[in-house]
Amino acid sequence: MKDLKREILSMVEKDLKEIEIALSDNLNPYLNLVSDVAGHILFAGGKRLRPLLMVLSARICGYKGRYDKIFSTIFEYLHAATLLHDDLVDGANLRRGKPVANSIWGNSTAVLVGDFLLARGLSIAAATGKPKVIKIIAGITEDMSQGEIHQLIRKGSPDLTEEEYMEIIRRKTAVLFEGACRISACIANAPKREERAVSEYGYNMGMAFQMADDLLDYTLDTGALGKEVGADLKEGKLTLPVIYALKEADRNDRLRMEAIIKNKNFPARDFKLLIRLLEKYGGIEYTKESAKNHIEKAKKTLLVFKPSKTRRILEYIADYALSRKT
Amino acid sequence: MKDLKREILSMVEKDLKEIEIALSDNLNPYLNLVSDVAGHILFAGGKRLRPLLMVLSARICGYKGRYDKIFSTIFEYLHAATLLHDDLVDGANLRRGKPVANSIWGNSTAVLVGDFLLARGLSIAAATGKPKVIKIIAGITEDMSQGEIHQLIRKGSPDLTEEEYMEIIRRKTAVLFEGACRISACIANAPKREERAVSEYGYNMGMAFQMADDLLDYTLDTGALGKEVGADLKEGKLTLPVIYALKEADRNDRLRMEAIIKNKNFPARDFKLLIRLLEKYGGIEYTKESAKNHIEKAKKTLLVFKPSKTRRILEYIADYALSRKT
Repeated sequence: MKDLKREILSMVEKDLKEIEIALSDNLNPYLNLVSDVAGHILFAGGKRLRPLLMVLSARICGYKGRYDKIFSTIFEYLHAATLLHDDLVDGANLRRGKPVANSIWGNSTAVLVGDFLLARGLSIAAATGKPKVIKIIAGITEDMSQGEIHQLIRKGSPDLTEEEYMEIIRRKTAVLFEGACRISACIANAPKREERAVSEYGYNMGMAFQMADDLLDYTLDTGALGKEVGADLKEGKLTLPVIYALKEADRNDRLRMEAIIKNKNFPARDFKLLIRLLEKYGGIEYTKESAKNHIEKAKKTLLVFKPSKTRRILEYIADYALSRKT
Repeated sequence: MKDLKREILSMVEKDLKEIEIALSDNLNPYLNLVSDVAGHILFAGGKRLRPLLMVLSARICGYKGRYDKIFSTIFEYLHAATLLHDDLVDGANLRRGKPVANSIWGNSTAVLVGDFLLARGLSIAAATGKPKVIKIIAGITEDMSQGEIHQLIRKGSPDLTEEEYMEIIRRKTAVLFEGACRISACIANAPKREERAVSEYGYNMGMAFQMADDLLDYTLDTGALGKEVGADLKEGKLTLPVIYALKEADRNDRLRMEAIIKNKNFPARDFKLLIRLLEKYGGIEYTKESAKNHIEKAKKTLLVFKPSKTRRILEYIADYALSRKT
């Protein structure tokens, strides 16, 4: 899988460099503190998956303009804005192996710089001059905030259903991926069927990406994860591996799992037991399968387009999303 | 002055009713919690000054459409979003005599519902279908977040200059007033000179409104103010009455004032002394004069328009902004 990542990176090296430049060129704050805080979250080794998907989708839709990289920053800025706000909501300590912004600069600054990044994303969307694009972006931000609130409301509830989980991750993650791809079709003036295809690709990628992300919490150690192992559970965030296992478990095991979930400071021993139970009841496997189904759907929608290098990269990225270890 | 308020209210009663309905009709969250938190801040006796200015500006620019009330909600939603985030930043306890949202529902919910309100405002802006309108709104949200951050960075600094204060209140308050008025001209397809006139009216109203607001902290008691007296100073927020008095004071009095400012838990006795010093060095008077100058400018810009009932209301509101006691 390392080879797949290396292969993708070699194919998109030039795009990633240009995205990196656009991210730093389009921030434009007048206060140094805003650059510092935004930079802390923006330039901390993010994968640039959202802008990259936007640039590649635009290309597969035949976009020939010069603004794809600039518009792609919208999705990284919005993403960074939600990370700043989420870290505060989640009470996490680490993000990508670094202390979270609110632990360095305080909650207030993190909130306000998040607001600034959100506003920057929307300003750049407005610069497209296309009301449809702006409507989509504004809708995404509505969805993302409500997805986060929904997750927050249901924190620590062992009766969270799979349907609710799907609704939460759709709003908090998949709509942004979907939007990045849809907007690329809009700026390329692509036909409806191409817009639909890239949108579906993005949506399914987003769903799979979030499931894979949620799995990492149960399959990696802290060093590789860049945050505390079991952090989701400590924050009361129930994800698909747990939801499924809770549903499948016999009464006894279900009670044991619920006891661990309820105790926010569970010892490492309990966490290991929980992982064994997730495996026993197929929670890990089921989540992998669900993510894989979304990835298959994502790749299938690309068949609307003729075979090309760009299509191949989009397929590779789909495969990578499923197998990534960081 | 009570008579002026009553007179204005009788002249805009129908508009205010329709604004109130639009505010509740256009929120559209799918989660009850979002309605509750947004409702707590939105329906707590706000003056609806921003939407009202938008509706009246549209009218004076000859707008004949049916969407002025809907579009006017943008400015109340953005305003409410910043209140939710600011209360958290400021660490205040009361807002309009009620506990602040973050003290009831926690910081996380307040942040996320603020994000939702921001997004709703931008979605409604997108619904105008006018890229220019959307650009202005997105620009406003950038300015507001940076104004707040600027204020935050300079908290407790006795060397804050009048110029910096003006820059902060321009961004955090005046751009929203200005935008509400400018956008009304855009949706009315008004000529450039009318757009410029209402924009300047809005800008000057916003500057004066914030100065008058900052004055209330030194001229009212808690009951009338709806929050703690001296709260600005306790939060380290230096406003024009203090900035001016610090500049004018002799060395001895300056040191006394700085000592009070530095001590975040100053007793009532010290606060009274401070107010005496503000009066002695003309800080209160100077701020009143500055606000008055902006109001005069605001009223002067309206002379572009023929005399009308709408122009009269806008003039009355300008006078009221200066004299208000709540």
